[in-house]
Amino acid sequence: MKVGSVHRRTIWPSADGQAVEVIDQTRLPHDFVTTRLETLDEAAHAIRAMLIRGAPLIGATAAYGMALALKADASDAGLDRAYDVLLATRPTAINLRWALDDVRALMAPLPPKDRAAAAWTRAAEICDEDVAINRSIGSHGLDLIRKAAARKPGKTVNILTHCNAGWLATVDWGTATAPIYLAHEAGIPIHVWVDETRPRNQGAGLTAWELNNHGVNHTVIVDNTGGHLMQHGQVDLCFVGTDRTTSEGDVCNKIGTYLKALAAKDNGVPFYVCLPSPTIDWTLKNGVKEVPIEERDGAEVSKVTGRTADGAIATVQVIPDGSPVVNYGFDVTPARLVTGLVTERGVASASKEGLLGLFPERR
Amino acid sequence: MKVGSVHRRTIWPSADGQAVEVIDQTRLPHDFVTTRLETLDEAAHAIRAMLIRGAPLIGATAAYGMALALKADASDAGLDRAYDVLLATRPTAINLRWALDDVRALMAPLPPKDRAAAAWTRAAEICDEDVAINRSIGSHGLDLIRKAAARKPGKTVNILTHCNAGWLATVDWGTATAPIYLAHEAGIPIHVWVDETRPRNQGAGLTAWELNNHGVNHTVIVDNTGGHLMQHGQVDLCFVGTDRTTSEGDVCNKIGTYLKALAAKDNGVPFYVCLPSPTIDWTLKNGVKEVPIEERDGAEVSKVTGRTADGAIATVQVIPDGSPVVNYGFDVTPARLVTGLVTERGVASASKEGLLGLFPERR
Repeated sequence: MKVGSVHRRTIWPSADGQAVEVIDQTRLPHDFVTTRLETLDEAAHAIRAMLIRGAPLIGATAAYGMALALKADASDAGLDRAYDVLLATRPTAINLRWALDDVRALMAPLPPKDRAAAAWTRAAEICDEDVAINRSIGSHGLDLIRKAAARKPGKTVNILTHCNAGWLATVDWGTATAPIYLAHEAGIPIHVWVDETRPRNQGAGLTAWELNNHGVNHTVIVDNTGGHLMQHGQVDLCFVGTDRTTSEGDVCNKIGTYLKALAAKDNGVPFYVCLPSPTIDWTLKNGVKEVPIEERDGAEVSKVTGRTADGAIATVQVIPDGSPVVNYGFDVTPARLVTGLVTERGVASASKEGLLGLFPERR
Repeated sequence: MKVGSVHRRTIWPSADGQAVEVIDQTRLPHDFVTTRLETLDEAAHAIRAMLIRGAPLIGATAAYGMALALKADASDAGLDRAYDVLLATRPTAINLRWALDDVRALMAPLPPKDRAAAAWTRAAEICDEDVAINRSIGSHGLDLIRKAAARKPGKTVNILTHCNAGWLATVDWGTATAPIYLAHEAGIPIHVWVDETRPRNQGAGLTAWELNNHGVNHTVIVDNTGGHLMQHGQVDLCFVGTDRTTSEGDVCNKIGTYLKALAAKDNGVPFYVCLPSPTIDWTLKNGVKEVPIEERDGAEVSKVTGRTADGAIATVQVIPDGSPVVNYGFDVTPARLVTGLVTERGVASASKEGLLGLFPERR
């Protein structure tokens, strides 16, 4: 989407064709810096150090990492080494393994001399496929926004989102933000409530930055505020992303999503989850019981990073010395609280039957 | 309660009897500093600049502020001036007006020469009355904790709290924390989940500091986490405070309380609100419709203050330049989500009949 007046993706081949470039997301929202990845190690570092993040973008970067590795060493051993190095960067990211498996399986049968170019082409395809999926999710979500707009002609549609399921987490468009960007481009008057999303502040830091740069009307709120807004009719729709959806429609997403879904239910606000179908885990049923929840570094809770008045980036501790913290990264929103699952094939009810209706090949 | 090994109140007469001393709460949780208030202006500044905060403590400080003013000028004009100066410090604090009305009404009939000493005595009484009320709320809440403990013999009772309704907001004990401190002193194994409570972080900064200093087992979590904990059986009881409770039991408290109450209801976790009866607003019924919600400075959302690694206190901006913010200070939890109201007279159901049962003089 737009940064300033320029339309960008989160990852793109450099003009000289020798490298891939990415936005260094660790510098957002205070600095916009792009960085050039020329080698396997630089690609691996970009994933590990979270210069790039978000499951789809991790997969795309890994695919380009394979291509960069094969430029230096296209042997079978080189292929395996690139796979291993990249897989170790973020062990739990499903898209990472998927992209690496995909590229390795396609390259292994080829003669080594053809591998680098073929991998480069495949990486570009993976990026384009991600863009197409998100664009499709967006068009189905746009229909929901159009309906909400039709219920209040001439008035602004207020949408609440949590965390960053935006274009920065994908190659472009994002998942939860794709309907928002399409509605904006269609001229529908919208306004987005952006949850700060402690502890990592990806809402305040990334989603707000995205919307601000693309010119979408928005307001940042602390995570505590959504319920109050819904009680007072200030939210028409919720759109969030998900890291994993069970076969029965339970949704694992950034911690705090469940609380917003409860408030939406309590106030009759539709609560939609936007997801590319590969994030559906068909092996799981009950999300609360079955999805393991990552416990992350407590420093994300005890410390906050931002920009001081003199422009320096600084980290401050917000709890007393000696107080323990715990940091669960995700929670599970039961299907009963989800109005619909917005996928690239359309909108399903959050249920086994709903999902199988869109994905009959899984019956 | 305890700071290190010393039992303290939040406000106390100085040893020389010439001043009153308070904890400078703006320095918490990183520095423990007490400050001496010798004049009307110093007392007014302490309230205005939020060196002290919390409705009961504001009232107590204002009462001492009257006494300090009358030492310098005990005339009728001096009495009125002290009243006006103190009332202007925090215009919306109900306890402030109550304490000032109380002291002025008692002093006005007295000969000026007797006023300073009488006001000093009355201020001390107001403090002691607050302590007694909170102690009584605590004893009723302790019964609830005992019952929870009896349901899981030998295991720790997990209590979740939001914001700071602790001793720092009162003269001692606190409201929501009074049952916790009494349970701790009774040797019941307890553990407290402390919501960070953005935007002002009074949970992370004040409640955690209190519990840490008193030696109560606790863990700080971001505001997004409570629902996940409740889904997984990690919360036995919730205790929160309130700024205003309607005659039908709706509860206005720090923003985000409503979301935790929804999660408690969804998971069968008892949700109790602790309140001194003067905070019941008998003139209101429907809290969501009738309680005006304060909109505060957006800088509380866009910026976070804490301690840097080198020990300095610093403020960092956490949102992009150009992104708007909104900052609602409170929300309303409907009575249907509240298991009980814990008052100094006992525990009432959150309903008109429940409250009138404890306060029959209001019938």
